[in-house]
Amino acid sequence: MSTDPLVVFTPSGKRGRFPVGTPILTAARQLGVDLDSVCGGRGICSKCQITPSYGEFPKHGVTVADDALSEWNKVEERYKSKRGLIDGRRLGCQATVQGDVVIDVPPESQVHKQVVRKRAEARDIVMNPSTKLYYVEVAEPDMHDPSGDLERLVGAIEADWGIKNIHADLHILQDLQPVLRKGAWKVTVAIHLGDDENAPRIMHIWPGYYEGAVYGLAVDLGSTTIAAHLCDLTSGEVVASSGIMNPQIRFGEDLMSRVSYGMMNTGGAGEMTAAVREGMNALFTQIATEAEIDKGLIVDAVFVCNPVMHHLLLGIDPFELGQAPFALATSNALRLRADDLDLNIHPSARIYLLPCIAGHVGADAAAVALSEAPDKSDDLVLVVDVGTNAEILLGNRDKVLACSSPTGPAFEGAQISAGQRAAPGAIERVEIDPVTKEPRFRIIGVDLWSDEDGFEAAAAGTGITGICGSGIIEAIAEMRLAGLLDASGLIGSAAQTGSDLCVPDGRTQAYVLHDGTAIGGPKITVTNPDIRAIQMAKAALYSGARLLMDKFGVDQVDRVVLAGAFGAHISSKHAMVLGMIPDAPLDKVTSAGNAAGTGARIALLNRDARGEIEETVRRIHKVETAIEPRFQEHFVNASAIPNSADPFPILNGIVDLPNVSFNTGGDSEGGGRRRRRRA
Amino acid sequence: MSTDPLVVFTPSGKRGRFPVGTPILTAARQLGVDLDSVCGGRGICSKCQITPSYGEFPKHGVTVADDALSEWNKVEERYKSKRGLIDGRRLGCQATVQGDVVIDVPPESQVHKQVVRKRAEARDIVMNPSTKLYYVEVAEPDMHDPSGDLERLVGAIEADWGIKNIHADLHILQDLQPVLRKGAWKVTVAIHLGDDENAPRIMHIWPGYYEGAVYGLAVDLGSTTIAAHLCDLTSGEVVASSGIMNPQIRFGEDLMSRVSYGMMNTGGAGEMTAAVREGMNALFTQIATEAEIDKGLIVDAVFVCNPVMHHLLLGIDPFELGQAPFALATSNALRLRADDLDLNIHPSARIYLLPCIAGHVGADAAAVALSEAPDKSDDLVLVVDVGTNAEILLGNRDKVLACSSPTGPAFEGAQISAGQRAAPGAIERVEIDPVTKEPRFRIIGVDLWSDEDGFEAAAAGTGITGICGSGIIEAIAEMRLAGLLDASGLIGSAAQTGSDLCVPDGRTQAYVLHDGTAIGGPKITVTNPDIRAIQMAKAALYSGARLLMDKFGVDQVDRVVLAGAFGAHISSKHAMVLGMIPDAPLDKVTSAGNAAGTGARIALLNRDARGEIEETVRRIHKVETAIEPRFQEHFVNASAIPNSADPFPILNGIVDLPNVSFNTGGDSEGGGRRRRRRA
Repeated sequence: MSTDPLVVFTPSGKRGRFPVGTPILTAARQLGVDLDSVCGGRGICSKCQITPSYGEFPKHGVTVADDALSEWNKVEERYKSKRGLIDGRRLGCQATVQGDVVIDVPPESQVHKQVVRKRAEARDIVMNPSTKLYYVEVAEPDMHDPSGDLERLVGAIEADWGIKNIHADLHILQDLQPVLRKGAWKVTVAIHLGDDENAPRIMHIWPGYYEGAVYGLAVDLGSTTIAAHLCDLTSGEVVASSGIMNPQIRFGEDLMSRVSYGMMNTGGAGEMTAAVREGMNALFTQIATEAEIDKGLIVDAVFVCNPVMHHLLLGIDPFELGQAPFALATSNALRLRADDLDLNIHPSARIYLLPCIAGHVGADAAAVALSEAPDKSDDLVLVVDVGTNAEILLGNRDKVLACSSPTGPAFEGAQISAGQRAAPGAIERVEIDPVTKEPRFRIIGVDLWSDEDGFEAAAAGTGITGICGSGIIEAIAEMRLAGLLDASGLIGSAAQTGSDLCVPDGRTQAYVLHDGTAIGGPKITVTNPDIRAIQMAKAALYSGARLLMDKFGVDQVDRVVLAGAFGAHISSKHAMVLGMIPDAPLDKVTSAGNAAGTGARIALLNRDARGEIEETVRRIHKVETAIEPRFQEHFVNASAIPNSADPFPILNGIVDLPNVSFNTGGDSEGGGRRRRRRA
Repeated sequence: MSTDPLVVFTPSGKRGRFPVGTPILTAARQLGVDLDSVCGGRGICSKCQITPSYGEFPKHGVTVADDALSEWNKVEERYKSKRGLIDGRRLGCQATVQGDVVIDVPPESQVHKQVVRKRAEARDIVMNPSTKLYYVEVAEPDMHDPSGDLERLVGAIEADWGIKNIHADLHILQDLQPVLRKGAWKVTVAIHLGDDENAPRIMHIWPGYYEGAVYGLAVDLGSTTIAAHLCDLTSGEVVASSGIMNPQIRFGEDLMSRVSYGMMNTGGAGEMTAAVREGMNALFTQIATEAEIDKGLIVDAVFVCNPVMHHLLLGIDPFELGQAPFALATSNALRLRADDLDLNIHPSARIYLLPCIAGHVGADAAAVALSEAPDKSDDLVLVVDVGTNAEILLGNRDKVLACSSPTGPAFEGAQISAGQRAAPGAIERVEIDPVTKEPRFRIIGVDLWSDEDGFEAAAAGTGITGICGSGIIEAIAEMRLAGLLDASGLIGSAAQTGSDLCVPDGRTQAYVLHDGTAIGGPKITVTNPDIRAIQMAKAALYSGARLLMDKFGVDQVDRVVLAGAFGAHISSKHAMVLGMIPDAPLDKVTSAGNAAGTGARIALLNRDARGEIEETVRRIHKVETAIEPRFQEHFVNASAIPNSADPFPILNGIVDLPNVSFNTGGDSEGGGRRRRRRA
């Protein structure tokens, strides 16, 4: 007796012997090779494309003859002529084994394909969405053996795809009979595969083979902005991204003023809930329009947000979050339906909210933890997500600590005299010549520096309208490096600094970054109160990080990840000159961009990631800054530029911090507030 | 070492030894004795009342000393003085074991108490509702170990009550924080215990110990009437019952005219869905008002209905049910939320719809099967539920067959010249003197016969308005027994019958049951077209039953159960004289009352019964009358009174059927239509 042919799959390396005539798709399924199929091998969907290789493969111990697979057949020919097929590709359900063969499964034919993240240090996302498409052929009704159309559909899905205990939402039942008949008992269904709370459910049904996609939303619900990515749940591709201002801003800029609004106004929390849900619906309409898809195809959505937004989204009065002990109504992840939140997407779309870590450390921090995975890091990583509150994570494989620090809105341009949100026209980068003390800057929307040719023409469109969070950080750090500012945060006078850009501003000084009055624009200065606001914010941020380091028992971290839109725009050098973050090698300070949004996207695209982050959050040790005496102590010591609390040996090797003091009292290191850091 | 005291529980007979000082409740729990407790042994709820017995118990081998239990304590004293306690009763959580003791658990202290059904042959209902109350004390929030209020509540429930994987609906989260604080971290929760589709869920939460009940609805959604029982989910007691006309009647009296309405009118099915849901909401308001409870305390509802009503309730166009192969959209049981059906009861009340058996045999028939349990019967039982359609079950432990037969609305008084629905004023019982041919009758709402003293005065309130389904059956059977009617269904003339109550009516005759014109009321006659309508209906009913007997391979059944309001009102003798049901000993023909409604109540009060009836329905063999040639054959032979298809030997021993013939052709057994029944 001859031996059955050997089939070797790459890149998995899985191999097995199969009888002559076995379809490649069947061989792949039996070996557990990740080869996609929506139609179950009926030659309709073409998701099972594979590439056979011919010739000698010493590595696999195989020689593949030209006739190792069955001949190109009519189904393949029809598919190729209609839709096109890359040369050398075959359909795995049509090509059968005739001899030893090596089969490559290209990435696009893998169910669990990887979605590549742009950052070198970030892991790719493995596709494993909660909702998938399946094509089935359903038995027709039979009066001799009566059964419901749904039951025969469910039976077909179970037989073909092995999914058990499937249920259907009511709207599916309402559509089922005409759709089955329109499709001549052949239909495509979208199935939510279930979780520990819900059995698998049919979400949608199309007559015949449905060639389109279903979509999911990864939503980062911030206090100020709501950003959403619309993702194709098969490819993982982001098909559209969009954002709007959080309409709750009219009830209060910062979270605590919104909590107060709820306390002071009967029904106030309800108003804010309605506002944010309406805003979200507007955003979803906008993003679906942009992507040119039907909103009804959005079957899954993941939300990340801070605890106050979390509660307001859910319709829970955030009253308790405004006072000790900052009790969350619920901290676990939540699985809801779109209609629970009045969201106008698919009528039974599933909503997943990541777990909250603590009363001040929300689902957004959990999403950052999912994206940046400090719990999987070999080295000790400090992850800082700067918003109105800073969420801070510190940890490695052994342990992860988390806290939140009340930075306030200064980093977002609020409470700054010329401050504004990051928008076209805002100064976002600043350099000050240490000799001439002259500034140059860049504004959002223009690629040129302000001293380069063509800048004025390029800036004419937006004007130079103010300074955003990253701009004020750079301005202050540059002022310090140029000797215009002492460590206590005082701006020197023109006489002290030798720069007539230092001008009196009430009883203190200001530095003129841009005198726009000549061109009809605003005059943009950095004032001592601006610096004071930033000092408070950065001290809060720094103190939170230091507190976690104390709790961890370390004086230094191996690397720092700056998350959030703000983190993406500030330079690590300037952040360290300012003393925002603990001292670390500059090349070990990276930006993760919108890590919370990325975490939402991971949870959207990979259902297993949901269980993983829930488990991780249970293991994260929460530190409440409000009741830690060390936090206050660090805070007091951290207002200097850089912090008197920290020696910054690494930074000192890179930059030269002028030893100046503009305080009339003459203390160069932070006025009378400075205390010695504990050994 | 001495042996621990012996504790014997009655009526269970469970026994075990427990250390001195063990509370009786603890001993009961360890032995699995069914002793209720809502507060978990805190001396609050008093649900764990037990009765100790003292003295010699040779049967149990125990002598109980006077000090076998700890002394009456303050908690018991306080409870007794506040709420009262039957003499001799103790609280199981307070009384502790001191010596050998015999403890009786009274029925009201059992969780799985039995609700007694009034009929001798029906089994009691064992209480095991889907939603139960639990009292818990919740840990307060702790900033050092942050967790959500919900998670601490869930943890407390799991620790005290052993219920795992509990979730909460969104509205619970919205109420949770104020309720926990109002109750000083002590709360009572109503928990839906989950099923194969849903994890356990908190349905409602009250501050402190909640002394009230939660409620469920057993709803029998008929084509003509909607009836509901409101039940206390702890005691099982029916606290109110009410019914309304199905508001869909305006779209068509019978089911097929409603199906047609949906086909002929765009949005017609949706209109009917809205109408029935509105009607149900009105009914629920009415029943809650009557019971003086808050509708929001109705947390569970079970619906039984025929397939067309099932689909219309769910918002599914019943189009397919109007034509072969009569495909149901779904046949399995359904678990929904009240808001899925726009029902204004508790916002997350659970809805359970019993499974449908086939396209013509609905959840109402399944409910009858649950109530009458032919699958658990040793003898062969025929269960007939008469409505616009008759649902028929035939079976025993070995096998159950089911079919539906299109009787039409004649049995409900429709299509009858003087017919009306069963309502005060309608003739419901009829007797005709075989000698004088004079009738006497009773009307609904009056206990006297029409020839008794005081009848006229008693009937003055309603008048004598018409004849209802049971009345027309009795009238026709009595006419046959009195020789006014021949076997073919023809009424004799005054000359032929010797009764001047037989009057000409067009080309045929009519019999004057009541000449009300003298008192200003209608004249109530039974006409030949009336008899023809009843003949058609009863032939359909009989033929369905005979078809199932053929399929079962029997010529006789052991007993007959008449279900439905109609079945409750007709006498079995008259039904058999008419030839509605196969021949059976009269004492073996019983009425089950509203068995569908009882089935709904069983499914409401006992969650395990839901799985049981789902399994039973899977095993029931469905017979489709529309495609069975034998059905037509039986139908043709069954229009005579009694049927020419059936010899009725038992009936013939009881009544004397006059051998008369009023047909001009002279055939005494059904005109030219009669065919010989197959051997």
